[in-house]
Amino acid sequence: MAFIVQKYGGTSVGDVERIKNVARRCLAARKAGHDVAVVVSAMAGETNRLLKLTTDVARKPSKREQDVVASTGEQVTVGLLALAIEELGGQARSFLGHQVRIVTDSAHANARIKSIDGEKLFESFKRGEIAVVAGFQGIDEHGSITTLGRGGSDTTAVALAAALKADACEIYTDVDGVYTTDPGVCAHARKLDRISYEEMLELASQGAKVLQIRSVEFAAKYKVKLWVKSSFTDDPGTLVTEEDAAMEDVVVSGIALNRDEGRIVVRAVPDKPGVAGKVFGALAEANIVVDVIVQTPSVDGKTDMAFTVGRLDFERAREVTERTAQSVGAGKVETEEGIVKVSIVGVGMRNHAGVAAKMFQVLAQEGVNIRVISTSEIKITCLIDEKYAELAVRALHTAFGLDR
Amino acid sequence: MAFIVQKYGGTSVGDVERIKNVARRCLAARKAGHDVAVVVSAMAGETNRLLKLTTDVARKPSKREQDVVASTGEQVTVGLLALAIEELGGQARSFLGHQVRIVTDSAHANARIKSIDGEKLFESFKRGEIAVVAGFQGIDEHGSITTLGRGGSDTTAVALAAALKADACEIYTDVDGVYTTDPGVCAHARKLDRISYEEMLELASQGAKVLQIRSVEFAAKYKVKLWVKSSFTDDPGTLVTEEDAAMEDVVVSGIALNRDEGRIVVRAVPDKPGVAGKVFGALAEANIVVDVIVQTPSVDGKTDMAFTVGRLDFERAREVTERTAQSVGAGKVETEEGIVKVSIVGVGMRNHAGVAAKMFQVLAQEGVNIRVISTSEIKITCLIDEKYAELAVRALHTAFGLDR
Repeated sequence: MAFIVQKYGGTSVGDVERIKNVARRCLAARKAGHDVAVVVSAMAGETNRLLKLTTDVARKPSKREQDVVASTGEQVTVGLLALAIEELGGQARSFLGHQVRIVTDSAHANARIKSIDGEKLFESFKRGEIAVVAGFQGIDEHGSITTLGRGGSDTTAVALAAALKADACEIYTDVDGVYTTDPGVCAHARKLDRISYEEMLELASQGAKVLQIRSVEFAAKYKVKLWVKSSFTDDPGTLVTEEDAAMEDVVVSGIALNRDEGRIVVRAVPDKPGVAGKVFGALAEANIVVDVIVQTPSVDGKTDMAFTVGRLDFERAREVTERTAQSVGAGKVETEEGIVKVSIVGVGMRNHAGVAAKMFQVLAQEGVNIRVISTSEIKITCLIDEKYAELAVRALHTAFGLDR
Repeated sequence: MAFIVQKYGGTSVGDVERIKNVARRCLAARKAGHDVAVVVSAMAGETNRLLKLTTDVARKPSKREQDVVASTGEQVTVGLLALAIEELGGQARSFLGHQVRIVTDSAHANARIKSIDGEKLFESFKRGEIAVVAGFQGIDEHGSITTLGRGGSDTTAVALAAALKADACEIYTDVDGVYTTDPGVCAHARKLDRISYEEMLELASQGAKVLQIRSVEFAAKYKVKLWVKSSFTDDPGTLVTEEDAAMEDVVVSGIALNRDEGRIVVRAVPDKPGVAGKVFGALAEANIVVDVIVQTPSVDGKTDMAFTVGRLDFERAREVTERTAQSVGAGKVETEEGIVKVSIVGVGMRNHAGVAAKMFQVLAQEGVNIRVISTSEIKITCLIDEKYAELAVRALHTAFGLDR
């Protein structure tokens, strides 16, 4: 007998029939003798509907009251799932954030979990119940309702598993695991049986949107065994876990493609201390997340600085950067859209030489011009023209032996 | 400066524009220098939508989980109203049942309030906020969410006003007060400036559906000054309060018409102790509320028993009564639909003779046949054929001097 945390996302509980399907899955785990805590999201589309109500009422809704409204989506789902389990003859009880209790800080709309008191859940298990826990929500020390930000139900599940020392945390979604790359781009994409936390983090942050990044960080920190599974099939899925020797034998585990990128270049930036801090400080203040940053070697005390931002932030980032460029005495600001980021990821890179060279060679053979290169210990990223995106992914997938 | 509880029903907060309208009204009271706690219902139609989800998932949903789902309707409204008040430059904070805290018994879907701890509301007032409280919901001693039953937001408002010793409780609805009778039936219907709790109870239970009965009982018990007002006009509305000498001068205050009635007659019931208990006990067990009960004088140890039930319960009541009739050795069970209940109500009846005689005379003059008569200290009810309903109401309205 084990203690398992399961998590089902919005698509998996998107309508009454799907909720019944989830109920059957929870019951199967319970009947196999496990204690089961199941974390659910709001029904697909519901969180957006609720947030739209808040922006219909107020131009700049306070995040505190927005959380009160948004958290009802999960409350509806836990009630319905508990009912569906009871309808199938099982025993269940729903738990909201303030009932579990999941205590967070007071950063509404983006709260961080501080502690989880699992006593009520364990009492529930003792009564033979499946504990149905609302994802995405918590309560701060003043008793106000908080939410964890988009994808927060993944975090709830992993945090529960970590705090209550669950044997496994199963994240059910509409794909049956983590793939070497997007199967929509590359027909030879292969499902991975195992992947390390680090690789998963790099793939997730690069656009393989299966798991929320914060939940993977959490899992890594507390060594929670994380399964990514499909709620519609019986495939064993992908295990996200600690790195081991076998993983290091594989040079490249996956290839990520991120389309939503814009590039900004600031020419002739005075190369003296504090200037870079001003450029990126202004962007951070505007809440713009900057990704790949590259600085050319200094010539005559001047340097060129290039960086990428998400497409949604692109216009604002350009405005902010133009103001900063002027104030630090830099040259003109150039922008470029229509570029993508392709990355190869693998813990094996640490022990294998020549990976970057091979990547550049493969892209060159296909006539793909590389705009910017950025590397980390387990990842190499190239910015390329959008039109080459699929070609680059497929060529790299074959070259690094990932094809099925 | 006073402490006022306001309550707005589902129609008053039925869409974004109406929520903004309510926000303006709350702010006006706050700007007049009052401490304001505002209780709101779910947006019109929302509770039904949520309950339908629960019956889509389970044939017999457990009331505990149903409450978890149903209570989200009010949670959405309090968040939105708080945002709307903030948008207009006011300060507001939403409070759920478990935050106030409104402690109830564990009778899910029909819970009774046991205690209210107003400390958080008073702290909220001190910060200059309007406290926006979710109606209809509470929490039991185990921390489970409960609901108070249909119309429960009225009860929340009155209970809050009673527990926290508010100076007034204003119930905002889509009518501008309590009328002598339904204006849709009688064009001469007149809005009442004042009415006693007792009269209001009789009118409400007879189908003048402005206020939930339980909330009026609560108000009477704790002497809460209750105003019925329109959320769409500035009419002062109707004050529901303690009976005073002036009220007793008026013989009849209002006329109630209740259409949804069915009549069941059990013939030749053995007139011995315990039989009536069996007949009505069986109905009570089936959760059927029986209204007017009349028993004919006994002849040869047999009596006829007649009673009315709501149309929704009619079929089930017939079945239950037929079973009981057989088991107690009574005669056949006859049923009749298409009858209505018309009642005249007034505390003045206590001191005026001949009121019943006048009522019968008025109905006789109009050719209305009376099926059953039932009287209480401040009310006389006649069951008549449905076709005479409007005629009877109008004739009585004129005869008792209620016309405008």
